[in-house]
Amino acid sequence: MVTELISSVDTFDVRFPTSRHRDGSDAMNPFPDYSAAYVVLRTTSGAQGYGLVFTVGRGTEVQVAGVRALANLVVGCPVDELVADPGALARRLIGDSQIRWLGPEKGVVHMAAGGIVNAVWDLAARRAGKPLWKLLSDLTPEQLVAQVDFRYLRDVLTEQEALELLRDRVAGRVERERSLRAEGYRAYTTTPGWLGYDDEKLVRLCREAVNDGYDLIKLKVGGNLADDVRRFRLARAAVGPDIKVAVDANQIWGVPDAIEWMRQLAEFDPYWIEEPTSPDDVLGHAAVRAALAPIRVATGEHVQNAVVFKQLLQARAVDVVQIDACRVGGVNENLAILLLAAKFGVPVCPHAGGVGLCELVQHLAMFDFVAVSGTQENRAIEYVDHLHEHFVDPVRIRDGRYLAPTAPGMSGQLLPASVAAYRYPDGPEWATAADGATTTTAVPVSAAA
Amino acid sequence: MVTELISSVDTFDVRFPTSRHRDGSDAMNPFPDYSAAYVVLRTTSGAQGYGLVFTVGRGTEVQVAGVRALANLVVGCPVDELVADPGALARRLIGDSQIRWLGPEKGVVHMAAGGIVNAVWDLAARRAGKPLWKLLSDLTPEQLVAQVDFRYLRDVLTEQEALELLRDRVAGRVERERSLRAEGYRAYTTTPGWLGYDDEKLVRLCREAVNDGYDLIKLKVGGNLADDVRRFRLARAAVGPDIKVAVDANQIWGVPDAIEWMRQLAEFDPYWIEEPTSPDDVLGHAAVRAALAPIRVATGEHVQNAVVFKQLLQARAVDVVQIDACRVGGVNENLAILLLAAKFGVPVCPHAGGVGLCELVQHLAMFDFVAVSGTQENRAIEYVDHLHEHFVDPVRIRDGRYLAPTAPGMSGQLLPASVAAYRYPDGPEWATAADGATTTTAVPVSAAA
Repeated sequence: MVTELISSVDTFDVRFPTSRHRDGSDAMNPFPDYSAAYVVLRTTSGAQGYGLVFTVGRGTEVQVAGVRALANLVVGCPVDELVADPGALARRLIGDSQIRWLGPEKGVVHMAAGGIVNAVWDLAARRAGKPLWKLLSDLTPEQLVAQVDFRYLRDVLTEQEALELLRDRVAGRVERERSLRAEGYRAYTTTPGWLGYDDEKLVRLCREAVNDGYDLIKLKVGGNLADDVRRFRLARAAVGPDIKVAVDANQIWGVPDAIEWMRQLAEFDPYWIEEPTSPDDVLGHAAVRAALAPIRVATGEHVQNAVVFKQLLQARAVDVVQIDACRVGGVNENLAILLLAAKFGVPVCPHAGGVGLCELVQHLAMFDFVAVSGTQENRAIEYVDHLHEHFVDPVRIRDGRYLAPTAPGMSGQLLPASVAAYRYPDGPEWATAADGATTTTAVPVSAAA
Repeated sequence: MVTELISSVDTFDVRFPTSRHRDGSDAMNPFPDYSAAYVVLRTTSGAQGYGLVFTVGRGTEVQVAGVRALANLVVGCPVDELVADPGALARRLIGDSQIRWLGPEKGVVHMAAGGIVNAVWDLAARRAGKPLWKLLSDLTPEQLVAQVDFRYLRDVLTEQEALELLRDRVAGRVERERSLRAEGYRAYTTTPGWLGYDDEKLVRLCREAVNDGYDLIKLKVGGNLADDVRRFRLARAAVGPDIKVAVDANQIWGVPDAIEWMRQLAEFDPYWIEEPTSPDDVLGHAAVRAALAPIRVATGEHVQNAVVFKQLLQARAVDVVQIDACRVGGVNENLAILLLAAKFGVPVCPHAGGVGLCELVQHLAMFDFVAVSGTQENRAIEYVDHLHEHFVDPVRIRDGRYLAPTAPGMSGQLLPASVAAYRYPDGPEWATAADGATTTTAVPVSAAA
């Protein structure tokens, strides 16, 4: 019998020119071009697994280089071994004794590991004929715990505690899976609130969101206080008092600014303040939370790894944990973060949007509901209606809820035509671009190299 | 008059095959190949500035890609503006609205910014005809404070506090500069203690270190407890009770392991435990410190930015701040870290070794002595006697002390012959290597890509 091996890891620089319409504009990033280092694992039997690392334009080539550096560690590996234990691969990629200097466990090389690990999980789910959320939900507590690296977590969460937590949730799995398949998972929407949209568009999109069934929307803040007050007042008037409105500062503030600015917005009843300051500042988030209660504090899309999430929970610094499918070292590290959040009883409301983040992260939230936290209370998955048309298995939203994916895999496969069209810099969408606000020209001068 | 502009940023992948002799071997990194993404800024007048980002082998190409992505933001800039205010450049590189997604302020893209910023400081010092430590020491408190980004620091250190601290030290600058030029700056050595050295070599190098004038040496630990006990006992016997012996676990432990393991080594009187756990774990370091006092806790070579140093100091988690010249966003961010350490009265003992780290970081420690902390008490710069022969202006050590550099610049310029010989993968040292323990072959399989 011939052993099936990983034959190649192909990585593509794919960029969508979203900055042309200021979709995704916020206080820190006025002109993002949603992009990805797109990862395709190929095996000697012809099977494929898909992953991506979300980026926002310039620098995607660095992320591609990161994936390629780690690809050396997976090409040639037997597929049976990889899909049986993606955690072993995750440890090997994250722990490479030379490459880890470039992190460790953070930034480009960590996200690169996550992209490859997610592609292996995608491959595993395709082989099993299950959507990833279902594959994960069918693992035993023992199998799940074996997929987590507890090295830096045991002072807060041991293997034994994790096992007990998961075992406590086994009884209700069948009923929760049934409810998930029937009713989906609650979504919230950031579509109305981008900082680059004018007041008319903001109000119109707020009303549409309510009509579409959302009961939580999010506005970007932090550019200008007077603008924030006016926009929040308009949004609140548009949606009424019963719809929750969260705000997101995208790290623009230091700790004292965050507290002062948010006090000016408190009268509009913000549901949470997201990324009030540096994602690295555990003690800063704790100070902001203490000063602003009962306004919730949320963060996570830039939280680099489980060690920082551990501390955010230890320090009682957050009310909402916002996991991201691409920021950390893949499904395995997100499993660790879900376990930590469950231990502390803090709700997980995943970060999504961009390109592919909704497709990927829905699986983690749904698995969390079925097998880890066991609840959807105070939880919702972020939803933004951009770029889903480029995916083979795009998310499906009905009445403000994500429907559970049914196709095998993790839903991150891009349409081949989209990859071809948006490849940077040679795809036709870029090669012919004459637009000023694009990745290529949004820098002051071009490099000599 | 023709304005002098940055004409190019050239970046080289330079790797030294140190793993062949296990120089630099520790618990996390048994086979490092000391390497660098080497940065050469060229101007239209023919002037040059030199920086480097230290790496340990595989993945250096990713670091090179990071520097090249940011090079776009500096090529074409007027040199007068850059050298008059490197802080403005640092903010622009670190804050690029698209590239910051890959950090933010951490890992590959942050170190890339640091490499470029350091090269600009090198250029500034060369133009001024001063070694960098002297250039910095001649700046006024107002000029220094203007070089720091306080956005995420003000809850702990304001511009005003920093200004007052620096003004308090102005009076003694002349006398401290005189003392520095006459007596240098205390060094400590890690040369004896690499984990891959056998007992005979360990004992011999310990004795040599004492004979060479060192009163603080460092041993690597964390591989195997019985080995650590035996090695520490041998080292203590070799140096006697009056020489300080620090130990370094290179992040191998979780919090409970660190505490338990170090209790087994306490009888040999460790001066500090370095990197007991993840560099991201502020609360973990605080717990280790509380449990192990009076053994000091040290960290920093992997601490990603000033926000994490701020918290390590806030949480009383460290006794020794180990700045690194290449880990953070350059001289400006290290200035912020020196100010934070000075405010808390915590001594700074810079991380060095590798390739070029001693050359670069000595300037920061000497500047700190003259103008920031104003003291060398309980301080020493790490020294390892590897690879200095590749530098145009190598460090000079006499009787266990660094002599103050006198040549203009930051001392990071490599000899052109060394760059040519060790360029990866095309330099002759690599193209002809048939050795098993090298960067190219220390991976299980080769990539198809």
